[in-house]
Parts: sequence; C-alpha cells; structure tokens
Amino acid sequence: MVQGGFTLWFTGWSGAGKTTLAIEVEKILKDRGVPYVQRLDGDIVRQDLTRDLGFTKKDRDENIRRVTFVASLLSRNGVATLVSFISPYREARDLARSRCHNFIEVYVRCDVEVLKSRDVKGHYKKALNGEISNFTGIDDPYEEPLHPEIILDTANQSVEESRQIIIAYLEMKNLIGKC
Amino acid sequence: MVQGGFTLWFTGWSGAGKTTLAIEVEKILKDRGVPYVQRLDGDIVRQDLTRDLGFTKKDRDENIRRVTFVASLLSRNGVATLVSFISPYREARDLARSRCHNFIEVYVRCDVEVLKSRDVKGHYKKALNGEISNFTGIDDPYEEPLHPEIILDTANQSVEESRQIIIAYLEMKNLIGKC
Repeated sequence: MVQGGFTLWFTGWSGAGKTTLAIEVEKILKDRGVPYVQRLDGDIVRQDLTRDLGFTKKDRDENIRRVTFVASLLSRNGVATLVSFISPYREARDLARSRCHNFIEVYVRCDVEVLKSRDVKGHYKKALNGEISNFTGIDDPYEEPLHPEIILDTANQSVEESRQIIIAYLEMKNLIGKC
Repeated sequence: MVQGGFTLWFTGWSGAGKTTLAIEVEKILKDRGVPYVQRLDGDIVRQDLTRDLGFTKKDRDENIRRVTFVASLLSRNGVATLVSFISPYREARDLARSRCHNFIEVYVRCDVEVLKSRDVKGHYKKALNGEISNFTGIDDPYEEPLHPEIILDTANQSVEESRQIIIAYLEMKNLIGKC
C-alpha cells in the first residue's frame, strides 16, 4: 500500500507544548510502521531555510510561507508531515491549509498564567521585562484558530492524553491504520 | 514495497537542457508507476522559497542551500527528486551531495557555441551585449563537476538518448525497477 501523506500543523503560544507533542506523535507513527515521517520546527529549518528571518510580522509570514512550501511538497508526496510553529497569524495558517495535503490544524492551547509560571526557557520573563520584543502574547498578537480540526488544552491535559486525541483523529480519518 | 528515494541533480549552463530532461525523466518514472516524483527548478521554487534572491554568488549559494534542504527531506522520505539548477559552484553542489539521499550528479554539457546559436530565450545575446549581468559562462564562472555520476552531451545527443542514459543508470543502481 502506498502511504498517503498528511500535514499535522501545531499552532499555539511559545511553551504550550507544540514540539513536545509533535515528537510524541512522530514516535507513535514510527512505532506503527509509517515509513515516512518528517517533523519541521524552528530548530530544524533555521540553519538552512530561514536563517535570514526574525520575528516581525513580515518575517514570520515569510517563514511560514517557506515552511508551507516544504510541507506541501512532503505531504503531497506521501509523507506524514508534522509542523510545529507558533504561526500566530490566521492568514498565514490559512495559506498553509490551502496548500498542504490533508491539512489538520492542531491548536495547542494553554492558559497564559500557566505558561508564565512554567516558563521553561525563561522567555516570558524576558518578554514581560522588555528584554526581548515581538513576543507572541506579550507584545505581539496571537490570532486564535477559528475552525481547528483539533483543540488541545495542555494546561489540563497530559501529553499522553493529548497525543491520544491526535492519533484517534488520524485513525478516524483513515490517515493511519488502526492498531 | 516502500519506494526508496533518490536525488537526480541536473547541473549545467543555461539552455543546456536540464529542465527539459528532468520533465522527460519525470514522465517516464510516472509511467512506470513510481508513486512519488517531485521536480524542483527555478520556476517551481521562486515564488515561495527564493523570491528574495538574485544571481550573485552569495544569492546563488543561498538558493542552492535552501533547495538542498528541500531535496534532502524529499529524497530521505522516499521521493524521486529531480532538481535542475545551473548550480555553477562546486562547493554548493558538494553540499547537496553530502545531504541528499542517493545523490546522482547529472552534468548536462553542451558546447558553448551551440548554446549561443540556439539561445532559445535570448539570454546569451543579452549577456554578451552586457544587458544582463552575473550570467553563467559569460561574466560568471561555471565550475565543471569533477566526478559526476552521469555526463550528457546535449549538443550531440538527442533528448531521447539522454533520458535513456539516465533511466539506465537508475535501473543499474536498482533505484527503479527494470521494465
């Protein structure tokens, strides 16, 4: 059987758990024998694809445009593609939706007070102190998804629960086989 | 059977026939039932991936860096990837070789006098008249491949002959099944 591709697009504030979840889902897909799984996030693309870009709206839009191009090629060529970027602008995400094959928007929600108190990387503290700028949720907007396929609440759900919701969705849509 | 990916990297002067050949090979692969085939060339990537780039060495290197990233992801994920860019710099092509899966460098040679006399797009005339600059072979260098897997001579070989050489190579390396 030729594998059908799809795009899981994780969007949400910094620290909400987008990449953590993408890594977990990647593991499950590989365990289930899905031959081609590709993750894309800032760490993966920065060196080769987007190193000229910063965090202004213009640069974020350009970032998402390039990532969308890559995700569209991968997903149309049968690859299970897992994309995790804050991607705060609705229009940019809608472009991704229109281009990528079997696009699934996963809104990784997390209560902002929980994010500020966790603050694993110390970014929220720095943004609140004005040490870094263009920080989503602090001095830059986040436009919530209007009709995401999946909404998670990582302030109240465990990683295990969240990933099960995603896998169940993929099974329901016949994008992966059932166990 | 899960398809194995590879990268056919067509390099050579403007007008030598890189994209023509890539399109021909793409057709053959699809006719033979290869499920996932993706071409990449300037027309395909310019709008979304490289629209900020021109033709200086710095910009060409950045262009090839981004394309290499995309080709590496595609080829490692089972896609038959056909890349056609002048890619005049050896170091940039060697980067592509080191990153892409099953990399096959196809040097599309063509006698320069033939290129100038054909000049389908009128680019050589403009470059020779100084109307456009940074034109490979005229006022910009082309560093010939030292050890390409395939060398074609499109001044003397037909498109049919050239594509047969490529297909035979893919069969010999068991990257596609024999007819």
